[in-house]
Amino acid sequence: MHRTALLTVSDTSPSDDPEDRTVQAIREVLERGPFVEVDYARVPSEQARVRAQLRLWSDAGRTDLVLTSGGIGLAPRDRAPEATRDVIDREVPGLAERMRAEGARVDPVAALTRGVAGVRRDTLIVNLPARPSEAADALAAVLPVLPRALQVLRDARTVADDEGTSDREGAGDRTSVAGSPPPPGDDTSGGPA
Amino acid sequence: MHRTALLTVSDTSPSDDPEDRTVQAIREVLERGPFVEVDYARVPSEQARVRAQLRLWSDAGRTDLVLTSGGIGLAPRDRAPEATRDVIDREVPGLAERMRAEGARVDPVAALTRGVAGVRRDTLIVNLPARPSEAADALAAVLPVLPRALQVLRDARTVADDEGTSDREGAGDRTSVAGSPPPPGDDTSGGPA
Amino acid sequence: MHRTALLTVSDTSPSDDPEDRTVQAIREVLERGPFVEVDYARVPSEQARVRAQLRLWSDAGRTDLVLTSGGIGLAPRDRAPEATRDVIDREVPGLAERMRAEGARVDPVAALTRGVAGVRRDTLIVNLPARPSEAADALAAVLPVLPRALQVLRDARTVADDEGTSDREGAGDRTSVAGSPPPPGDDTSGGPA
Repeated sequence: MHRTALLTVSDTSPSDDPEDRTVQAIREVLERGPFVEVDYARVPSEQARVRAQLRLWSDAGRTDLVLTSGGIGLAPRDRAPEATRDVIDREVPGLAERMRAEGARVDPVAALTRGVAGVRRDTLIVNLPARPSEAADALAAVLPVLPRALQVLRDARTVADDEGTSDREGAGDRTSVAGSPPPPGDDTSGGPA
Repeated sequence: MHRTALLTVSDTSPSDDPEDRTVQAIREVLERGPFVEVDYARVPSEQARVRAQLRLWSDAGRTDLVLTSGGIGLAPRDRAPEATRDVIDREVPGLAERMRAEGARVDPVAALTRGVAGVRRDTLIVNLPARPSEAADALAAVLPVLPRALQVLRDARTVADDEGTSDREGAGDRTSVAGSPPPPGDDTSGGPA
Repeated sequence: MHRTALLTVSDTSPSDDPEDRTVQAIREVLERGPFVEVDYARVPSEQARVRAQLRLWSDAGRTDLVLTSGGIGLAPRDRAPEATRDVIDREVPGLAERMRAEGARVDPVAALTRGVAGVRRDTLIVNLPARPSEAADALAAVLPVLPRALQVLRDARTVADDEGTSDREGAGDRTSVAGSPPPPGDDTSGGPA
């Protein structure tokens, strides 16, 4: 099972919020695959707040997949894609392309979503839209390939552990390993891919 | 009606120029939607010249949509995408993806266009190809979603005005407001999205 | 005929290596078009090594097209896209989009490939996947438009020669021309497009 965290990016009050329906819609799609929800958070639509939460989950090493919803439109406060690009080591553009292309079959406005997908350390991060049906459709468009992506990241982690470049599995969170070296081959760590 | 400016990017002399036919082709497509042409300019295919014109229109606050044509191929002087990326606050990749995917149904060479779409302040900028039929097809591929995009930008502008972060509507052009703060949430203004 | 160089990016030993079958698969597709293989190399999957080989071929001016295979997945060592982006003057995103979209018709995992295509000087560089069938399918998806792309680059080179900004055709390799100016219009040479 792939450990999945959900992040709602929204300026709306949690009470009486359609975002809650979005999270429910995302959960229903996730049930179709080998995913288990391990965490949920909600942050206002501020680039620094989104970035901080993505770093927290990715660096703790207990989350394989982070799905964000909201903050990927054209309004000035929609900065989830920028926050994601700030933290990923390498972008996976095909996931966003596929979500938009498949989404546009239902409604052409999917072309206006600016979602990004990418990897930070061992964690895959995928931006989904804010509306329930759009988020569900976008996730469903990439769901069949997510297990394969997460398996590649898991295999890479095992190799790193075997080579002694990470003590995360043995000693706990990466956040407790100050100065932990980046994974092998990641010679431009931290920059957007 | 959305205020639209057209920019021809070309090194060819204006006389006896197929670009003129491109502008005519773009105008014919625009007539299908709620767009009114408010300005037209022609610049040589130089990155700095394209960039300057895009800034001028976006920062004056009287243009909702800028459509450029030309300068998006593979030749060394084709730098309209780079000029656009230099000035936008956030990219809208789905528009370019859709123009290329739809264009490739007619002619696969659409895969070679390098057009970019993005937002600077309240203005949406979209790069179109140089040839009349290709420019018309590319614009037609995104025309149905442009009013929605422009409405989002208009709504954001109204919010900014209500919050007093912009006096543009009351006092005139943004170009006259030195040191005007960026829109809220735009905490990396100026950088390519 | 377009002078084509093939680059295998792999950490596997050359003996008993499926990459060899990938190169064979690429060659079979190339035979369908006006391409002649002029060079082949194999480098380990290290960003600096890939970058160095791409620079060598592009700057020597005897290669019109470079096709890399491998190193475009999600594993930490898969850095061929980053290496390519490091060296290109301008990206041609439509080629990668088309390879992924066409590939996904056969197998949705094509959405996980992170290949990049772009131009350095007069040379077009295209990243292909590691597996034989995926590499062949990706190349076949863009093969019809490659001659057009290479013709545009050839025409630009001829113009540059006529204008005296390059003495490559007359005096030999670009590598021997220290301080050779960039092509006209390329006012941000070296940066990723």
